[in-house]
Amino acid sequence: MKQFFSVNDITSLSQAVQSALTSKQSPFADEALGKHKTIGLVFLNPSLRTRMSTQKAAMNLGMNVMVMNMTSDGWALETKDGVVMDGNTAEHIKEAAAVMGEYCDILGLRSFPGLKDADEDYSEELFGKFAKYCGKPVVSLESATRHPLQSFTDLITIVEHFDYQYDSVQEKLVPQGKKPKVVLTWAPHVKALPQAVPNSFAEWMCRAQAEGLVDFVVTHPEGYALKEEFTTGATVTTNQDEALADADFVYVKNWSSYEDYGQITCTDKSWMLTLDKLEATNNAKVMHCLPVRRDLVIASEVLDSEHSIVVQEAGNRVWAAQAVLKEMLKNQ
Amino acid sequence: MKQFFSVNDITSLSQAVQSALTSKQSPFADEALGKHKTIGLVFLNPSLRTRMSTQKAAMNLGMNVMVMNMTSDGWALETKDGVVMDGNTAEHIKEAAAVMGEYCDILGLRSFPGLKDADEDYSEELFGKFAKYCGKPVVSLESATRHPLQSFTDLITIVEHFDYQYDSVQEKLVPQGKKPKVVLTWAPHVKALPQAVPNSFAEWMCRAQAEGLVDFVVTHPEGYALKEEFTTGATVTTNQDEALADADFVYVKNWSSYEDYGQITCTDKSWMLTLDKLEATNNAKVMHCLPVRRDLVIASEVLDSEHSIVVQEAGNRVWAAQAVLKEMLKNQ
Amino acid sequence: MKQFFSVNDITSLSQAVQSALTSKQSPFADEALGKHKTIGLVFLNPSLRTRMSTQKAAMNLGMNVMVMNMTSDGWALETKDGVVMDGNTAEHIKEAAAVMGEYCDILGLRSFPGLKDADEDYSEELFGKFAKYCGKPVVSLESATRHPLQSFTDLITIVEHFDYQYDSVQEKLVPQGKKPKVVLTWAPHVKALPQAVPNSFAEWMCRAQAEGLVDFVVTHPEGYALKEEFTTGATVTTNQDEALADADFVYVKNWSSYEDYGQITCTDKSWMLTLDKLEATNNAKVMHCLPVRRDLVIASEVLDSEHSIVVQEAGNRVWAAQAVLKEMLKNQ
Repeated sequence: MKQFFSVNDITSLSQAVQSALTSKQSPFADEALGKHKTIGLVFLNPSLRTRMSTQKAAMNLGMNVMVMNMTSDGWALETKDGVVMDGNTAEHIKEAAAVMGEYCDILGLRSFPGLKDADEDYSEELFGKFAKYCGKPVVSLESATRHPLQSFTDLITIVEHFDYQYDSVQEKLVPQGKKPKVVLTWAPHVKALPQAVPNSFAEWMCRAQAEGLVDFVVTHPEGYALKEEFTTGATVTTNQDEALADADFVYVKNWSSYEDYGQITCTDKSWMLTLDKLEATNNAKVMHCLPVRRDLVIASEVLDSEHSIVVQEAGNRVWAAQAVLKEMLKNQ
Repeated sequence: MKQFFSVNDITSLSQAVQSALTSKQSPFADEALGKHKTIGLVFLNPSLRTRMSTQKAAMNLGMNVMVMNMTSDGWALETKDGVVMDGNTAEHIKEAAAVMGEYCDILGLRSFPGLKDADEDYSEELFGKFAKYCGKPVVSLESATRHPLQSFTDLITIVEHFDYQYDSVQEKLVPQGKKPKVVLTWAPHVKALPQAVPNSFAEWMCRAQAEGLVDFVVTHPEGYALKEEFTTGATVTTNQDEALADADFVYVKNWSSYEDYGQITCTDKSWMLTLDKLEATNNAKVMHCLPVRRDLVIASEVLDSEHSIVVQEAGNRVWAAQAVLKEMLKNQ
Repeated sequence: MKQFFSVNDITSLSQAVQSALTSKQSPFADEALGKHKTIGLVFLNPSLRTRMSTQKAAMNLGMNVMVMNMTSDGWALETKDGVVMDGNTAEHIKEAAAVMGEYCDILGLRSFPGLKDADEDYSEELFGKFAKYCGKPVVSLESATRHPLQSFTDLITIVEHFDYQYDSVQEKLVPQGKKPKVVLTWAPHVKALPQAVPNSFAEWMCRAQAEGLVDFVVTHPEGYALKEEFTTGATVTTNQDEALADADFVYVKNWSSYEDYGQITCTDKSWMLTLDKLEATNNAKVMHCLPVRRDLVIASEVLDSEHSIVVQEAGNRVWAAQAVLKEMLKNQ
């Protein structure tokens, strides 16, 4: 694996999940793989879970870890070509990426969208240039439009909490009986948040649906449709009640509008997930990528109930990262 | 040991000191204990000594270390229950702590008091909730009201600089001849500082006095009494000269008023420790937790003299941390 | 080696370069040397290359690494003696350095000049006091007036890109045929930058010239002469064209005026290095310490051409640091 940027970098979801669960069983089994290898984790935006879990995964694999928090203004990188750099940017991404590539065997990059210009954000120029110029395998630690380590984690967590068997001849996960119904639902927030997590979750679930692993439904208010390419094959509805009926997993997440790019066009508090709403579900498990604002996005009564698996989900971030790094190390 | 929050988490001071001094003799003897174990050091406030010494101790024990500096505004945690989180806090401590617990075998937490509301600070709500929700052993790296790694270090340093024998049958330290007189004295400062260090030092010295290791005296200006529970058994006086007479150890520290909570009510420069004042002592050793403001808290002439053991004291921070982590690892 | 502050801390340039290139061939050959040793990297100013490369070098040598970013205001250190510390500085360098020395076997320090007062900056008081009080070997990670790890790297890079043989009897590098002509040229910038990199590069090249390794020329506009002690033996000219004629290596760098201390007195864009200018050279390799502002300091057409070796140069930072740390560890 030369890059982990989206679900398209995964050959088989079943095998990827299986690899992660194997590492979860024996975290140090592949410790020799990363000996004398260094991963550089480059954060252009803050991170808690992603940083700790990826660092942990790398250490489990015997790697050295270097963390670069480039969140202060002094670190502004130029991404455009042909610019006379007499302004605020002190270094061009061509040099910055290439230099980091000199010091590291694998690089991770986190960079949030500006949420001003959809075309710019969705071009993923920064991530693309970084990957191109650093010359090393790159793991997305969340880019402008996707958060694939989170989505991979989410799939692992769904598989763990539902009845699947791994058919080791076909190398495929097989749901025992009916496939689980997985629902992604929008929820309110006070800030304009990126679409990276829902885009990515939708992209992975559409693929999981195509591989026969889940049934996938997205629900959101009018004006909050995700960019179409991420939801191809999903059932999309603005009726949250209808979406939640018989759900096995409810994935809650706020995002800002894609249509009215980066704007908050709905503040309807009735979209918050409550225990009441879960009654229509199939005793659904509730998921969220965290951090979650209690009683705004999800009611405390839900987070404090047996429905919530958000902490176990966060814990699984380690195994998603470890499966990805394992693949990258095997190719070196 | 499931928690290191105060002196009450230590069964025997003598054995704890002995354990620390054993590690100081052979820093890497327990290197196998921490193999494949990870400590997460979470700083909600800046740290130099605590961070470096705890990191060093953990590495000596073979542990992996992850440091989280959550000092910027983006990391504000909600600690109250039942709050609609539509304000500045992005994550509730319930989730933040639980998630860190997923990634780490031991956690350390530093969090300073607000110094606005004594009841809030002295409830130690943040530390208590963090320990409860993370589900892993937690080491205080200084909380609102205590700095136990510092106080443990201070006791180690006193033992090193006085004539004690370790009775290995009774497993007790025994002062040879008269017990040392240890004096905690207030000193001036330009900022309102927490009471954590003096509270904690007093709490440890009262316990050491109860175990027959020291005689303990506290001196401060009117209005600067520490909360009573921390000084039970100590001689307390507002007469600094009287306190210093025949002292073997003088522990200098500023703190803001507890009575007039968080305020600076005395700026009397005559409380600064000078060489003159040390003349009445028993050639006392001078201690401070550092950082120390020269010629405001302690005169340079003292810090630059043979009286001062502040650097050796800071060096001992490693061995206090190592003794605590060793106990926690043994229980896992 | 007790200190790495300038070229004067190197006994033989040839042997130092040879040591670095040996490590580049076998990065982990000296891994046992750093076992149970800790390096503390203290940054009073931001760093990308220096931090990552020194950390990498230390890890290659089996060391533990602790990074302290003391870039926020809370960390202001007092360096003057006899000051009543009732202002902004919270700790004196005497204590801060001594304490770090307690926790580390080797220390690295980065501290930029204020660019207000030449005498103060050129006294290198901060670095000198840090080295004195910490009591451990100290590596400069760039001080007020020098950046020796960069200059050592630059020499390594020149040797790699020219025809030298290592005479293992005399333990000396010998250029095959004519010595390379190395030119340091000033270039425009929008900010007032320190003289540390050009001072240091000049100091190393003058020494390399004295050891028969290169011919060295410096060119800059009127008013930009470096302090004389750094360019003794070099050809200095304000005619850039003349300097560039037949050059084998062109080292481009902006600096603020030393004469008119810390000021920008020339903004003449014609000093930027372009492909046109390189025509008069001997197909010169172009070097820069990075970060470089494209189309202000060096034209993109140059950085994107075969002339540029800036990325390989940055990569060599690891081997310079590793050679220095190796020497320090051998002495312990």
